[in-house]
Amino acid sequence: MFVDDLIKQPGLWSSDDLDAGIVVSSRVRLARNLKGAAFPGWAKEDERLRLCASIREACEAVPSLRHGVFLDMGELEKVDKDVLMERHLISHELAGMGAGSGVALRRDDNVAVMVNEEDHLRMQVISPGMSLHALWSIMDAIDSEFAEQIEYAFSPRLGYLTACPSNVGTGLRVSVMLHLSGLRLLNEIDPVVKGLDKIGLTVRGVLGEGSDADGNIFQISNQATLGESELEIVDLLAKVGAELVQHERNARARLLEDRRSFVQDYVGRALGILSHACLLSSGEVIDLVAALRFGVELGMVQKISPSELNEIMLLTQPGHLQKLYARVIHPDERDELRAQLVKNRVASCELVG
Amino acid sequence: MFVDDLIKQPGLWSSDDLDAGIVVSSRVRLARNLKGAAFPGWAKEDERLRLCASIREACEAVPSLRHGVFLDMGELEKVDKDVLMERHLISHELAGMGAGSGVALRRDDNVAVMVNEEDHLRMQVISPGMSLHALWSIMDAIDSEFAEQIEYAFSPRLGYLTACPSNVGTGLRVSVMLHLSGLRLLNEIDPVVKGLDKIGLTVRGVLGEGSDADGNIFQISNQATLGESELEIVDLLAKVGAELVQHERNARARLLEDRRSFVQDYVGRALGILSHACLLSSGEVIDLVAALRFGVELGMVQKISPSELNEIMLLTQPGHLQKLYARVIHPDERDELRAQLVKNRVASCELVG
Repeated sequence: MFVDDLIKQPGLWSSDDLDAGIVVSSRVRLARNLKGAAFPGWAKEDERLRLCASIREACEAVPSLRHGVFLDMGELEKVDKDVLMERHLISHELAGMGAGSGVALRRDDNVAVMVNEEDHLRMQVISPGMSLHALWSIMDAIDSEFAEQIEYAFSPRLGYLTACPSNVGTGLRVSVMLHLSGLRLLNEIDPVVKGLDKIGLTVRGVLGEGSDADGNIFQISNQATLGESELEIVDLLAKVGAELVQHERNARARLLEDRRSFVQDYVGRALGILSHACLLSSGEVIDLVAALRFGVELGMVQKISPSELNEIMLLTQPGHLQKLYARVIHPDERDELRAQLVKNRVASCELVG
Repeated sequence: MFVDDLIKQPGLWSSDDLDAGIVVSSRVRLARNLKGAAFPGWAKEDERLRLCASIREACEAVPSLRHGVFLDMGELEKVDKDVLMERHLISHELAGMGAGSGVALRRDDNVAVMVNEEDHLRMQVISPGMSLHALWSIMDAIDSEFAEQIEYAFSPRLGYLTACPSNVGTGLRVSVMLHLSGLRLLNEIDPVVKGLDKIGLTVRGVLGEGSDADGNIFQISNQATLGESELEIVDLLAKVGAELVQHERNARARLLEDRRSFVQDYVGRALGILSHACLLSSGEVIDLVAALRFGVELGMVQKISPSELNEIMLLTQPGHLQKLYARVIHPDERDELRAQLVKNRVASCELVG
């Protein structure tokens, strides 16, 4: 029921503000574990079930999660798990788990607390656009509310303890998702990736899991969780995010100045395929719709809005598509239905010189 | 002047008869050399020039070539050579040669006699559709007419002598160009190639020299020129050609029956790119226009005729395109102009369910 309603909501990249085109979303995540309990990967079946039930109780007691839902991975259909993954509300790993793992979701905005994934608690707040400091305030409050319900595993020397050493300390992962088609088309992504690595940040494609498709959308996040305060990490990501936005703007300006027909070709072909293909995979839709969005942002495509494109990208993912048609659909048939849906939605689109 | 007129003439694949879609063209070629003269590759500069002049005189005396022209490779512009190559009237090798090599062309149909290419004489007759026996009659007559003007290098044991042993004997190469998109889409080209190899025939892509593009158009020709009579070779190619046409028809019927949306996707994407790209290479145009032609033949594309598609394929080749605009054009600009030309010409095209 909750997931059925979810597919009607806009996704992350939903703003029609053209300036918002480069920043897809911001995310803040905390890893926490319970004192005196085995990490989920080491816990026996009955201990996992017991832990999950007690954390679920804590979730229900936490003020920030009131009016939310708790979804048990043992009870959720595959298609519902897919929808949650496609919205970045649960991880691929959690979706693979059954009873004893779950997720608490707040109905009104994008707060998700995964229970018994790699850690006992993986809490995240996610929102469209660049809003890291605001998200950190929300996360910090939720963290404090949980601390009143449960006792965290904490070492005065190391900080918060986690299943994987890479999260020990603050347990904080801060990330921004950026649409960097300009830098990608100019073959300037690799130097950016290397530069960010040097200052302790990781870059990776985030969409189209299991395919080569990424829609030129990259997630930038902190590597270290130890040795820096939460606010230092948030500050760094906000600063680097703003710089990358400026880099991308420069790249777009150079492309329009020096290589206009190359960009028009890139955008035109995307529209040509989206409007004429009869079979489309979800990965291909991500890449082509991102290219079309790039065209909209550069003023080369008219009569379709960024939020309409965002909706196409979201609704054509396997889980959303099956929810939309309210039935389980074989991948081959999905490719046909996806192509029809896309063809109808881009029919009014126009390329401008 | 001759080449300027040439670009207004339809090319090989010009019939609007939909049944003619599979057979692009037929070709018969004879290799001949002069008795007592060094083969072109071994002849010194002055001997080449002298031989070329005397063969040119013979060409002018041959009744079948009356009202024709002789084009000297030393005088022809690069763009004119490109046009002749794009129409399969001269080889890539001849185009690379200068003074002392040339081609005699008949104005009214596709007879070409290359002089001092690999052999002293390479005569060919080429025509749209399947017409090997008729072409052989024409070729045989021209051969006899030349024999009255010059003395051929001939051995009673081996037959006609040629620069490369692979042409010794009859000096005859008979070929058909077939559009085998059905077999290609079903991944059944490889077994066909192997089967033809066993009976002494060669299969190769013929278009898009220097690129991967071939438009699924294959040339089938005889390997051996020794040990079989001319008529046996012509009979074999005509028989195998007819069989391949039947194979291709079966492949198309199976595709329509079992994999209709796959074919519609293949055809639709081709139209989508042709109608939306801003940069197109000549190789890509060959592949995409061949796909569109396939769609026309299968009834999936309307409002464009095979002869219009043939014209697009021909006029967008580098030589033709530059002749059309009457100037030397840089490859980057050619890609833009080509895309504009194609976009205009396919604008009225419609996909049907």
